[in-house]
This record gives sequence, structure tokens and C-alpha cells, in this order.
Amino acid sequence: MKIGFIGLGNMGSPMAGNLIKAGHDLVVFDLVEASVNMLLAQHPGKASAAASPRMLAGAGMDLIITMLPASQHVKAVYLGPEGLLANVPQRMALIDSSTIDPQTAREVASLSASQGNVMLDAPVSGGTGGAEAGTLTFMVGGNEADFDRFKNIFSKMGKNIVYCGASGNGQVAKVVNNMLLGISMIGTAEAMSLGVSLGMDPKILAGIINTSSGRCWSSDTYNPYPGVLENIPSSRGYTGGFGADLMLKDLGLAAEAAKLAKQPIPLGSLAQQIYQTFSMQGNGALDFSAIINLFRKK
Amino acid sequence: MKIGFIGLGNMGSPMAGNLIKAGHDLVVFDLVEASVNMLLAQHPGKASAAASPRMLAGAGMDLIITMLPASQHVKAVYLGPEGLLANVPQRMALIDSSTIDPQTAREVASLSASQGNVMLDAPVSGGTGGAEAGTLTFMVGGNEADFDRFKNIFSKMGKNIVYCGASGNGQVAKVVNNMLLGISMIGTAEAMSLGVSLGMDPKILAGIINTSSGRCWSSDTYNPYPGVLENIPSSRGYTGGFGADLMLKDLGLAAEAAKLAKQPIPLGSLAQQIYQTFSMQGNGALDFSAIINLFRKK
Amino acid sequence: MKIGFIGLGNMGSPMAGNLIKAGHDLVVFDLVEASVNMLLAQHPGKASAAASPRMLAGAGMDLIITMLPASQHVKAVYLGPEGLLANVPQRMALIDSSTIDPQTAREVASLSASQGNVMLDAPVSGGTGGAEAGTLTFMVGGNEADFDRFKNIFSKMGKNIVYCGASGNGQVAKVVNNMLLGISMIGTAEAMSLGVSLGMDPKILAGIINTSSGRCWSSDTYNPYPGVLENIPSSRGYTGGFGADLMLKDLGLAAEAAKLAKQPIPLGSLAQQIYQTFSMQGNGALDFSAIINLFRKK
Amino acid sequence: MKIGFIGLGNMGSPMAGNLIKAGHDLVVFDLVEASVNMLLAQHPGKASAAASPRMLAGAGMDLIITMLPASQHVKAVYLGPEGLLANVPQRMALIDSSTIDPQTAREVASLSASQGNVMLDAPVSGGTGGAEAGTLTFMVGGNEADFDRFKNIFSKMGKNIVYCGASGNGQVAKVVNNMLLGISMIGTAEAMSLGVSLGMDPKILAGIINTSSGRCWSSDTYNPYPGVLENIPSSRGYTGGFGADLMLKDLGLAAEAAKLAKQPIPLGSLAQQIYQTFSMQGNGALDFSAIINLFRKK
Repeated sequence: MKIGFIGLGNMGSPMAGNLIKAGHDLVVFDLVEASVNMLLAQHPGKASAAASPRMLAGAGMDLIITMLPASQHVKAVYLGPEGLLANVPQRMALIDSSTIDPQTAREVASLSASQGNVMLDAPVSGGTGGAEAGTLTFMVGGNEADFDRFKNIFSKMGKNIVYCGASGNGQVAKVVNNMLLGISMIGTAEAMSLGVSLGMDPKILAGIINTSSGRCWSSDTYNPYPGVLENIPSSRGYTGGFGADLMLKDLGLAAEAAKLAKQPIPLGSLAQQIYQTFSMQGNGALDFSAIINLFRKK
Repeated sequence: MKIGFIGLGNMGSPMAGNLIKAGHDLVVFDLVEASVNMLLAQHPGKASAAASPRMLAGAGMDLIITMLPASQHVKAVYLGPEGLLANVPQRMALIDSSTIDPQTAREVASLSASQGNVMLDAPVSGGTGGAEAGTLTFMVGGNEADFDRFKNIFSKMGKNIVYCGASGNGQVAKVVNNMLLGISMIGTAEAMSLGVSLGMDPKILAGIINTSSGRCWSSDTYNPYPGVLENIPSSRGYTGGFGADLMLKDLGLAAEAAKLAKQPIPLGSLAQQIYQTFSMQGNGALDFSAIINLFRKK
Repeated sequence: MKIGFIGLGNMGSPMAGNLIKAGHDLVVFDLVEASVNMLLAQHPGKASAAASPRMLAGAGMDLIITMLPASQHVKAVYLGPEGLLANVPQRMALIDSSTIDPQTAREVASLSASQGNVMLDAPVSGGTGGAEAGTLTFMVGGNEADFDRFKNIFSKMGKNIVYCGASGNGQVAKVVNNMLLGISMIGTAEAMSLGVSLGMDPKILAGIINTSSGRCWSSDTYNPYPGVLENIPSSRGYTGGFGADLMLKDLGLAAEAAKLAKQPIPLGSLAQQIYQTFSMQGNGALDFSAIINLFRKK
Repeated sequence: MKIGFIGLGNMGSPMAGNLIKAGHDLVVFDLVEASVNMLLAQHPGKASAAASPRMLAGAGMDLIITMLPASQHVKAVYLGPEGLLANVPQRMALIDSSTIDPQTAREVASLSASQGNVMLDAPVSGGTGGAEAGTLTFMVGGNEADFDRFKNIFSKMGKNIVYCGASGNGQVAKVVNNMLLGISMIGTAEAMSLGVSLGMDPKILAGIINTSSGRCWSSDTYNPYPGVLENIPSSRGYTGGFGADLMLKDLGLAAEAAKLAKQPIPLGSLAQQIYQTFSMQGNGALDFSAIINLFRKK
């Protein structure tokens, strides 16, 4: 398959690499020329570069995948006279793996459909580690037949490929899961800090929670209290992992979606403010489990 | 063993019953005479009644267990000239299974120890169903040798018997776990409501969360969205289960403990306020997962 | 002066009326034809209608004022090939009195300036009562010389005309003031409800607060507890006044602005969620002081 | 009048001093002997020391005033066999000016009344400055005739003497006012920080808020943004004033009272958590307006 790939950042670059390794022909684009050159150098002779999204749109692709930082970049790449939608041939298949607000995802998909194209929103979880190992989770929204058709492509980049329903639902699933993750992580941080300051051993406390009704992924797999679990960010100074500023971004997407849907999210919204405070204090680059530092005496 | 049992409410009564069934001699007390009479009628010839805690204290018990609603009742039964501590013989063993604040638990245990007695705090989780089936979880604080000595007694009433460390730690584990449970439940309620109002099917959404990082007991075992799981309160109008007012009580204990420990618990504290609002609106008797009704359009 | 006026809703219509009464020639536009007809009928021979913003832009105005519900309407009226900016002659003066996010206000003003036009953002407070009486407060952002030049026009519609600094600052002042208002109102509602439920007379309590450090506009001028003050919404079943859904809109603008500015606003954000909950329960049309009903036993 | 005075801390000492200056005979007590000695040295020949509350109770006083740090100290001084209630002659008048929870105030007053004594709760506001200048505000609960009888005594120590109704209402008024103060201060801090980071001049912004509906004591008299007002803590590095840890204490009293009254206080409770976080970060000794540092980029 001839695949166009736009967006070669920390996530996009290894994803594109895995498609190349699987034998696909790639034409790539990124605003940062160095990122393009690095990818081409890593896979000599297996990929080529396009000079712009418009050029890529006209280069005879079977499928175009985008992996961009935020909504405004997705709009910039897809819309306007220089964008993909105005320049791809009819019946083109488009997959956007960026994490953006569901509303924008739906607007772009709807414009795409009105021009006879196929579009899937397919945000991922699993971080840069998952992108490199090809073990990402894809949450996919759009037509189910289209999902089935491209499932094989997703499986070159990920392990868990989930169909979420109509267009935009991939983004909904991602944003809603991550909001609950942010809440659980802060909740676990509060609970562990409180229990320890009341005299409990952190491992014993985690053990009890993990076999009880307080159990959650943040307590049993990614416990923020240092020393409770090995080989996760809390055991190595909160380096690596999923950055606090990325969690902040996702909580912001949840808050925006909730506002449009007229849904109250008191804990989700307070979690956003807590991560905003943490970020302002200069900690945005730490793993998001470092939020426990707000609740622990130094 | 001759066991004194004080507090024959919805929890205490089946717990005492299980001890009787296991062959122990019980002497019981409750302020509500009808509760005493019912227990004696259920187990004819196997138990007798004491006229007061003081009388029970002097009746030659090997062990006295208490199961009371709140701190003030524990103080009333244990302290003062009519209380257990003033009237038991030295080296008496005392187990308090009430859920109360860790500070009071430690004060009573410390007074008890100063008189040469043995005391364990051993709050439970598992609800009235677990009390009847003898499948409660006991979280036990106190001396480890004492814990080992009475483990067998706990196992007549429960299935999961966990040693939590020094005196009061049983209460700490209980209150901290339940605080995290309250946060996770509201978080799950917000997440499910938001996802559905943004167009997702609730079962598909729960399925994605439950295999992702948002996973928690409240999402995978006790999902508050109606129809996602069978045989739990959310599938039967939020009847049965763990009452919202009991969750409110436990969040209040957490807030009090956090204040004394000078620990911030922003989400735990907001969860308390949300349950307080829900209770004020007349919903305190519903299962605590009914909190989702605050976030769903009717 | 020949003044174009776009947006004849509950606020815009009396504002336009006051300009007519002051002797100005008006050309008006609204998407709702009935609103246009009503204004023309109220002021026979003193105003005329334009068929579109584009037509109005080309009709030889000295000044065009817009009063629209939200950012998307402002963008629709100002931008695009049919919009004001594309169709007014150079050096046109434009005043937008809509309450919108500062970012959009700045984008539109910047586009306007790049075409050689003058633009002021001038949101108001004072409600429909103030619009009719001509006693609105105008918070104005833009060039100070332009502010001085049009101060006289503002004074036909309002009483308190405040210069807030550079472009967009009118919106900033409005949104920041109203966020603090929303926080103070909920705070006052909590405080009054708590004091009364602890046994105090509401008038005595308000009297003490109003001479102490808890004093605020919401306690001394607009107290939400029924019966404390006369002739305000809380003394007439929370009718009239400033609707809860309008407060919700302004808190949403504040949250959006804070997100872009990377500023934490924990209380502002929780206030937004509380009004969202109140609105979901069907109370959005009540005066915003009715929020006290969330905190009072019925 | 012969007045017993117990509690010679930062507040009690100047209050006692003002009574001495007004010509009253004082017998004083404090656990810290140095505090007693300092007072006696400041007013040679005008006061004497008692060896214990019990001794003071039996020393023929006309009135005993207490000024203590917290509920447990009030209980220790009033209750038990060594306490005031057990040792004063009948019909003694007792005034407690400590800031404590309303429930404890009512319990002590009720015990006092059952022994035929008169008791008023009379917490103050105005800080150490007000205590020294004799300009405190007294919020007084108890029998109105008793209030009238001692109004003259209060006026030796304060300027604004307010009758709040039945026993405990002085504490209710204090705690409720200070909860609203804590909320308003954080709200003002958020609003000022947001407005400035969005480009406004802090003085202009404060000017607009102070003539608008966001106006509050924290914005117009004690603005936390540095440089907006002179001669307040924010203009001198947040030294002096009302300590953040004292605000935290009062928010804790409000939370406790609200729990007992089954009243939701979402903003009050979040304000408590924010001050707890601030205190944990080592800022408890700063003036409470320093909370703005949580919201400002350094």
C-alpha cells in the first residue's frame, strides 16, 4: 500500500517506521525538515518526502495518516485551499491519529464525507514506548466497514484495536478514559499520601487497596508512591512515562467537550486545575504520577 | 471460646450469628432490646444476653467484640465508669470492628493497653451481604502477635483477613480505601455520563475503559451506568448495596483524619461535598453509585 | 452620526433605541426579521433596515456597533467574504459590545487594524434593565484615542464608561469580574445557608458579614437568602435579574481564557461546574442567586 | 470589677492590658509562666497571678474571660474536676473569646447554665493590631440581657460589639464570615492573576472590579496583588496580617460545623484544601493573602 504520513514527532516517527518495516511504501511530510530527514535516513530507500500536504495529497496515495499535536494543526493540515480535503482525489481514505476534541474531529470527518472521502478518527494510547514497540491501543471512530478495511494497517502499529462507533467516538473514548485516569491518579496520590502520613507502610496500604474497592490502574499498575512498584516512573524520579502536561492537555479537551455537551464534571475539572497548578510550578515535563508531590511533605 | 458481642445492628447481628454457628458461646448486648431478642430467637439456647456493657465485662469472657455505628458510641461503650475498660479483668482481649476515625481508635487502644489489655481495631468491608455470608474483609490494626492469635476468630466472620500494622491502621486502611472508592465512583459517573452524552454506547465505553488506564473497581465491577453490568445496584434502581450516606460518613472520617494529619485531599474533600449535596437532595438511602444521577439529564 | 447596529436581542434592541432617542440615524440588522420590525415600529421614521451585514457595511455609516450572543456569531458577522471587515470602507469605526472570549476579540480587532479600521471591544454589564434605562457599564478595550472619540456615544447607552487598556481588555475585565462574582455568589450562598442551619437569623448574619471581612456585592447588594434584602431576585422567587445560564456562559469564557493563559482557577472552575449542575437540574432560567437552592434543605 | 483572665498569648495579652488600663483589677493565668511575668511587669501593681484555673475560679472574681487557641484548650480549662465550671461559685459570669467550633461552645455554655452560671461566647476579629489598639470586633452569643450587662467590658477591648443571638452564635458568625473571607480571597487571587496574565494592568483591573459586582473586602481593602494597595501585607512581602495557618484553622472549623449540620460547602471546602496545600509547601506563616502565589508565575 502507498501510505502518506503527516506528522513525524515523538509518536508519528516510530509509527511511520513500523509501517515501513511492514513493507508499505511511505511518502511523508513534517514542517520540521530535520524530522523528515531523520526518518528517511533510518529507512534508506523505503520512503520519500513530499514538499507539502497539498503535494502529498496529489501523489497517488491509497491512504493518508496524520499524527499532529492539537486541533489547530489538524485544521491547518486538512482544511483550506492548501489542505488535504481540497486536494485529494475522491474516495481517498484518511486516518487522523491525533488526540483532539471530538467536535473538531466530527467537523473534519463530516466535510470529508461530503466530498466522498472516507475518514476515521483513531487516537492512540500507550506513549512513545508503545509507538516504538508497535503495541499502541487505537480507539477508532467512523464507519464500521472502513474500520474493518484498515484494521490490518492499525495492527502494524498497535496491538489493541478497538472500534468505538460513529465518527468522533475514538476521540470521545480517549478523552473520557484519560479524564478518569487523571482523576484516579490524583485520588490515588491523595489516598497513598494520607495513609502513609497516618502511619501506614505504603506497600501494605497499596496491597490492601489493590484487593479492595479502591483498586484502579493508578494504584495497581502505576502507583505514584515511590518504591511501591518497580520499573515505573515513580521508582525512577518520575522520568519517562506520560508527561503531566500531556495529561493537562487531555483534561482540557475533556473540559471543553463537557462544556459543549452541558455536562458537569466537577472532579474532572478540579483535576485539570490541579495539573495546571502543578505545571505552573514548573513540573509539566515530569511523569503525570509526580502529581503526588503536591500532597507529600518534603 | 466465650465471646461477648456488643452491637447487633445490620452488620453485628449476622457477624454474631456466624460466631455462634462456629460453636462459640456468646453473651450479647445491644441498646435495642428487640435486636437482642431476635438474635436469641434465631439461635435458641446458644447465646445469652447481658444487661449492660458493664455486666458483660464482668461475665468471664475470653474476648469481647464491638460493632457500633460511630466514634461516639465506641467512646460510650469503652470509656467512663460504666464502660468496658473500667470493668474488664486485666489481660482481656478487645476487638472493635466499628468504622471510626483512626485517632479515636488509637486513643481507646492506648487506654486499653495502659490497663494491661489487648485491643485490635478491625473494621470491615463487604456490607450486610458479606456479613451474612461470612465473607467480610477485615482490616486489622494492633500488635501482630494478637492478630495471629485471633485470626481464626476473624475467619469465622470473613474471608480476607489483612494485617495493617500498628494500632489504628485498620481504620486508616478502611478510610483511605473508601475515600479512593468515593473519588473513583464519582469519576466513573462523570466519565460514563460525559461519554454517553457525547454519543457513545455505554457498554462499549465501559469495555474500553476497563481494558485501559481508566479502569477501576467502580468501572469494571460496580459500574454506575444502568444496564452496563447485571446484578448490581445500578441495574435495579440503585437499591441494596452500600448506601450513599455511608459513603458520606466515610468521606467525613477521611476529611477529619486528613485535617489532623495536615494532608491536602482536594478530590476527597470535593467528593465529600458532592455526596453531601446528593444526600441533602433526599438520596442518602440509595446505593452510592446513584451519584451518577447528579450528572445525567432526566 | 450615522450608526449601523447589528444584533437586536434583549440587550441590543434597547441600546439601539437609546441611540435613536439621542438623535442618531440608525441602520439596523438582525437575522430575526421580527426584531427588526419591532424596533422600526417603536421608532417610526427614525431608523431603517439593511438586508445583510454586507449591505449595512456599504451604506455609508460613521460607526457600526454589534451586540451578539457569542463568539461564533461575532466571527460570522465580521469575517469571511460576506462579513463586515471585507466590506466596510477603510478607516471605519467598529464597536463590538458582545461578551466573548478575549482571544477572539483580539483576533478580530487585529484583522480589523490590518485593514486600516478602528475597533473597540466594549462588553457591558447591567442587564436588560440597564440597557433600557441607559445605565449600562461599558468596559472598553482598544486604542485610548479611539475610546475618547466614542465616549460620548457610549454615554447615550450607559453611565459608567471604563477604559481598560489595549484591545481585548474590555473582555478580560468583564470575564474576570464575572468569574469573581460567580465565586462570591456561591460563597455567599454557602455561608448564609450554613449560618442559618447552625441557628442564626439570616438578617443578623448578613448584617455581621456586611460590616466584616466577608463583605461582598453578593452579600450586601444582592444577598441570595430570601427576605434579607428587598427588591432583588431573591425576594421575588429568583425571577428577573441575571440568569444562571448567563453566569454559566461567563464562567465558561473565564475557564477558556485561563486554559489559554495557563492559569489555574480552581474556585472559578468549580463555580462553573456548580452552575452546570444547577442548569442540568432545570434551573438555568432563574436568576443566578438561586444557586443557594443547591445548599438549602427544602 | 475584679476580672480573671486566662490565656495571655498574642491576642489575650493586649486584651488583658486594655482592661487593666481601663481600671479593672485583674487576676491572670497562663500555662506559659513567661507570658504571665511579662504582663505583670508591663502593668506593675495592677494585676496578680493565679497558680491554676482552679485557684483563679475560687479567687472571688466578678467575671472570668478566657482567650485560648483551640477547642481542646477550652475544654481543658472549663471542664473536669480542675476546671472552671467545677470550681467557680454559682452565678459566675464567664466569657470565652477563643475561636472554636460552635458545637463545643454550646456544650460548655449548656453545662455552665446547668450549674447556674452565665456564659457568653465572644470570638473576635481584628488581629493582634486590633487587640493592641482596642479596636477588635466582638461577635457575641448568649442571653441578650447578659450581653447588655457586659457590653461595657467588651468596649474596653473592642470597637464593634455585635450581638449574634443565642449561645454559640458568636462562633457561628465568626466561622461563617471567615469561610466567606477565605473563598473571596482565593477568588480575588484567581481573578487578579488571570486578568494580569491576560494583559491587564493590576490597578486598572482592581479599579473596575471594585466598582462592579465582583467587589469584595479582599479586592477593595486587602487586595492580594502586590502594589495595588499600600500598607497592607501584599505591599510588604505578605508579612504581618492574618496568617495563612489561622485561615486554615477557621476553614477547618467551618468544615466541621458544616459536616454536623449536613450542609454542603463545596467552595468553602476547596478553599480549605487550597490553604492546606499552601501550608504544606511551607507558607503557613505568611499573611493569608499570599495565597495568590499559588496562582502566579514566578
